[in-house]
Amino acid sequence: MSALIVGTMALDTLETPFGAKADVLGGSAVHSGVAASFFTEVSIVAPIGEDFPQEHLDFLKSRKIDIDGLQKIKGETFRWSGYYEFDMNQAHTRETQLNVLTEFSPKLSPKLSSLPIVFLANLDPEIQLSIINQVKGPKLIAADTMDFWIKSKKDALYEVIKKVDFMLMNESEVRMFMETPNIPLAARRLLKLGVKSVIIKQGEHGALLFTENGHFSAPSYPQDTFKDPTGAGDSFAGGFIGYLAKSGDFSEENIRKALILGSTMASFNIEDFSLDRMRSLKQHEIIDRYNEFREFSKFEAIDNLW
Amino acid sequence: MSALIVGTMALDTLETPFGAKADVLGGSAVHSGVAASFFTEVSIVAPIGEDFPQEHLDFLKSRKIDIDGLQKIKGETFRWSGYYEFDMNQAHTRETQLNVLTEFSPKLSPKLSSLPIVFLANLDPEIQLSIINQVKGPKLIAADTMDFWIKSKKDALYEVIKKVDFMLMNESEVRMFMETPNIPLAARRLLKLGVKSVIIKQGEHGALLFTENGHFSAPSYPQDTFKDPTGAGDSFAGGFIGYLAKSGDFSEENIRKALILGSTMASFNIEDFSLDRMRSLKQHEIIDRYNEFREFSKFEAIDNLW
Repeated sequence: MSALIVGTMALDTLETPFGAKADVLGGSAVHSGVAASFFTEVSIVAPIGEDFPQEHLDFLKSRKIDIDGLQKIKGETFRWSGYYEFDMNQAHTRETQLNVLTEFSPKLSPKLSSLPIVFLANLDPEIQLSIINQVKGPKLIAADTMDFWIKSKKDALYEVIKKVDFMLMNESEVRMFMETPNIPLAARRLLKLGVKSVIIKQGEHGALLFTENGHFSAPSYPQDTFKDPTGAGDSFAGGFIGYLAKSGDFSEENIRKALILGSTMASFNIEDFSLDRMRSLKQHEIIDRYNEFREFSKFEAIDNLW
Repeated sequence: MSALIVGTMALDTLETPFGAKADVLGGSAVHSGVAASFFTEVSIVAPIGEDFPQEHLDFLKSRKIDIDGLQKIKGETFRWSGYYEFDMNQAHTRETQLNVLTEFSPKLSPKLSSLPIVFLANLDPEIQLSIINQVKGPKLIAADTMDFWIKSKKDALYEVIKKVDFMLMNESEVRMFMETPNIPLAARRLLKLGVKSVIIKQGEHGALLFTENGHFSAPSYPQDTFKDPTGAGDSFAGGFIGYLAKSGDFSEENIRKALILGSTMASFNIEDFSLDRMRSLKQHEIIDRYNEFREFSKFEAIDNLW
């Protein structure tokens, strides 16, 4: 099945302990779309400014990503500038230039509105709602968000949550949003709001899945090479959605596989700046790392303890 | 096999979001010893003051723990007073009264010095070294520590690390000690110092094992009931050591099981204040939770992705 991904396309200026880069390719739709493109056909809807470099569009096309739904808007592309300190778990924003993002009002073509898998990447929840209202009978909708929207557009976010199959948040976001430090409790509160499944992104600690009757703890990966965390959550979501779209199997067993593939794609994405690692990534490397996740986390039953 | 555990016995005064307790049973040897006692015969060596309540000694005896090696010293028992805020991941110390701990200088009896499994619970690394020098050909030595010793007795801690099979630390401690935020890198630096295996305790995020050629990510448990984190790391270590002692099998496959049983014991210990949950804990509950860990973390191989 094909996936529709709606989010941002950005030019990022980044500084990490491993270097600094100016105006590199980024954005939630780009990181998630490229990760998903390793598994399935992807169409991206996002706004770009007149200054958006052609080479980045060419890169997306080289990944067979459909960019016909991009909305080119007069003005400059959305820009984020930030840095990471010694402990790269936390992004620090230097500057956010919304630019054309403030004018983004996506109208889906008939083709895009009928795509069966929909991922609403991190974006204004009011735009996420507008997309939910435009799509026609999708088989699966997943949505991501961030602390900025939890603080500024809580009501719209509540509406999004009621209408999606998977809500993705990171640990600090779900704690803030559900007003408890206890992650299982926060996840259950979120489920009560009407979402079918909650996925908690835990960065270097892996990921958690909560459904009404189920739970899954996806393991962490012992990451050696780690240069730039930007887009880790988006590439996680892209791998997750991309595999579900490809397989068309939404059983819990398969959702677990999809989460590990999400972690796999995130673990590659952070190995280099921007999406540079994704440019050389091969299918066999994805399978090898998935198998590493299995090797690193399996343990046997205990038959006879006493 | 029987286990020797050397550490502290304490009277803790605690405050968590779920209540406050004064002068309750605690200490690294107590939390680890009680957890280990569910699996194997345990002998505890620790100092107590003249004020140490008989009821606590009776509780340890009810767990079949050998307390002949306790050192009763003139003065008051070691006391720790602390609190946990909304997010219970971090203990805040109000007051530490070392009391008889400053006089502790354990001399092992011939019987205790020949026990095959040795756990050096959190304690002054100079005392840990003294125990290492007294034991006779143990099959396995594990040691725990804390930030206080990393800051104040780094050289002695380096010596301990060279001489043990398993070094246990929590995430922030190993980052501080090895001067890197990257946990896999920090663990490898620790291995280079001469320890055979490194275990990173991650609290609610599970635990990690690093050996020269191996890695294991133990999953987190979706903890519903969580009243008092005090002793979580000690009961984790106790379950780990206790199961290795019982099974006598130090293969990596079995070490993985031991880590999950450590997580299991910690997840029970934090359900109530002090060691209250351990007073009612049954063997079948331990097995059930171990099996939950398996259910919550398993995922299948992917045969044919492309």
